[in-house]
Amino acid sequence: MGEGPTLAELGEWELIRRLGAFAPPGQFADDGALLRLGGDPSLVVNTDVLVEGLHFSDATTEAADVGWRAAVANLSDLAAMGCTEVVGLTVGLVAPPSTRWTWVEGVYGGLAGALARYGGVLLGGDCSGGAQRLLAITAIGRLAPLPQQEQAGPIRRSDGRPGDRLVSSGPHGLSRLGLALLLAPDGPLAAQADPELRERAIQAHRRPRARLDVARALITCRPTATPWRVGGCDSSDGLAAAVAAIAAASGCGARLDRAALPMDPAMAAFTEAEAWCLGGGEDFELVLALEPRWAAALVAAQRGSGVIGELVEGKAGELRWGGAGAGKEPDPRGDAIAVSGYRHFG
Amino acid sequence: MGEGPTLAELGEWELIRRLGAFAPPGQFADDGALLRLGGDPSLVVNTDVLVEGLHFSDATTEAADVGWRAAVANLSDLAAMGCTEVVGLTVGLVAPPSTRWTWVEGVYGGLAGALARYGGVLLGGDCSGGAQRLLAITAIGRLAPLPQQEQAGPIRRSDGRPGDRLVSSGPHGLSRLGLALLLAPDGPLAAQADPELRERAIQAHRRPRARLDVARALITCRPTATPWRVGGCDSSDGLAAAVAAIAAASGCGARLDRAALPMDPAMAAFTEAEAWCLGGGEDFELVLALEPRWAAALVAAQRGSGVIGELVEGKAGELRWGGAGAGKEPDPRGDAIAVSGYRHFG
Repeated sequence: MGEGPTLAELGEWELIRRLGAFAPPGQFADDGALLRLGGDPSLVVNTDVLVEGLHFSDATTEAADVGWRAAVANLSDLAAMGCTEVVGLTVGLVAPPSTRWTWVEGVYGGLAGALARYGGVLLGGDCSGGAQRLLAITAIGRLAPLPQQEQAGPIRRSDGRPGDRLVSSGPHGLSRLGLALLLAPDGPLAAQADPELRERAIQAHRRPRARLDVARALITCRPTATPWRVGGCDSSDGLAAAVAAIAAASGCGARLDRAALPMDPAMAAFTEAEAWCLGGGEDFELVLALEPRWAAALVAAQRGSGVIGELVEGKAGELRWGGAGAGKEPDPRGDAIAVSGYRHFG
Repeated sequence: MGEGPTLAELGEWELIRRLGAFAPPGQFADDGALLRLGGDPSLVVNTDVLVEGLHFSDATTEAADVGWRAAVANLSDLAAMGCTEVVGLTVGLVAPPSTRWTWVEGVYGGLAGALARYGGVLLGGDCSGGAQRLLAITAIGRLAPLPQQEQAGPIRRSDGRPGDRLVSSGPHGLSRLGLALLLAPDGPLAAQADPELRERAIQAHRRPRARLDVARALITCRPTATPWRVGGCDSSDGLAAAVAAIAAASGCGARLDRAALPMDPAMAAFTEAEAWCLGGGEDFELVLALEPRWAAALVAAQRGSGVIGELVEGKAGELRWGGAGAGKEPDPRGDAIAVSGYRHFG
């Protein structure tokens, strides 16, 4: 071991921490990067890599869905930064020379479909042979200008404060259920899920949404004279991981209201429901920390969104069960909530 | 073969042509993409993928050189679009979990070194496990503003015109010689190359330059009242391929002056000299098509640059030997020049 640790030994988070030392301080803190430009300070850039076998597989994802999901994973990071507009994306495609054109055509069809839905164009890219199929996508988006030259956004993980309400833009766990149904179409879960839930879950997995509409709603429902301060990120790594990331970056703790977990009602009876809601991942919703009046206005304006808890004074990044109202006692049913995330160097 | 052609059967150029159908017309025409923004029309974005075994190997390239070359390959595309400023780049890193941190640290050190040299910062990125090491880099740069709100650039492949002089910003073939010397340190070429040439060639391969200075010189030496029109691209795929790309996109032919091939003088005696000058690739110089007075001013201002030929009326993209002066007869020594490029789906 004279050559030092491997990436598997470091783990993904320690690797990212070490790589951050090559960038300006704080540059790696959020889902995307704000471009510090003289003329147009409102651009955000984000890069995601999706590798066959880790992020997609022929068993569960058709080519068009690979493209759609790859685009949405990136556009979701733009939404999580507060972007309301997509400029476009570039695509680095690597594939073995034996790959069929029909697969590539399907992937780009899915990418183009997501751009048609959310705006922006295919800006460019590169392609190369390689041992396995993968996509490296870079998306560029813009924050919305506000009246009086004020700039909306960005949304930052570190902009939460104790007392903020935690808002989820939609249900969690459906994508994980969809994956389970695709992996075992005749398994016990398939028997338990009614056809409508089954359809919703598979759709959530194959065709997730990018919540650029949430950033727009944040602007329109902001209470008068409230300065722009929105903590948040997307829930691509799981709901609990998103809340923990906001709490950790904001230097406070978080309480989640167990009765308010953002779950598809038809899924609540499943044994796995709570675990998948908290840690299933790839739901691509936004999790936001907002001043209570703003949170209430957003929830009133955005169907499917809801208050799921609050940020509290306490150990940075610690999640516990508790009611959403200020001053309530911790939930007696439990204490700390375990946070799991994906490991891409297994 | 009911599933249609493979990528190997299509070839890289046909693949790129087909992928271009998913983007706005002309979007894939240049080395990078111009962002069409309201507030800041001067941004350029470019993505390159570098795969182990195809674009780099432990046998010839240390980790820091992999990072430097990866950055420069992208920054060279920004220079080829006319950028004078680097905003930064994002890095998608894929590597097997058994990869050593020291290798990754070396790569990012090389990337950071190139950014320190040419400007810009590491903006962000993503990392994932995978079967082989690769880097997917996206660079963002800016065109320079000119006096009177005029915008300098972009440089476009299609902006050449018959009568333009072809200018090369520096020597070609050195990088290919450097690769040969690294692959066979005790071979016949090593015996033929004197130590200074050997050093220059290996340096050219390991630490190529990004010619952002050329775009700056284009601005300062532009003859008065000459509108901005610069055809060009970089020579990453080889000098002949660059000239052919400009000629093809500009709808004209090209004549190269055999006596003016941009070659390191110490290399001229090598059997491979002309072939490597024309087709060696990875020299990352700029090849430009300029109105004759502008070309002369640039060559006078930029040490190492020179006129290598001209664009002529004729079959689009056809390269022939000929003198650089207008009206001269074709070179009797030869006719068409073969253009070779890299094949990344072999």
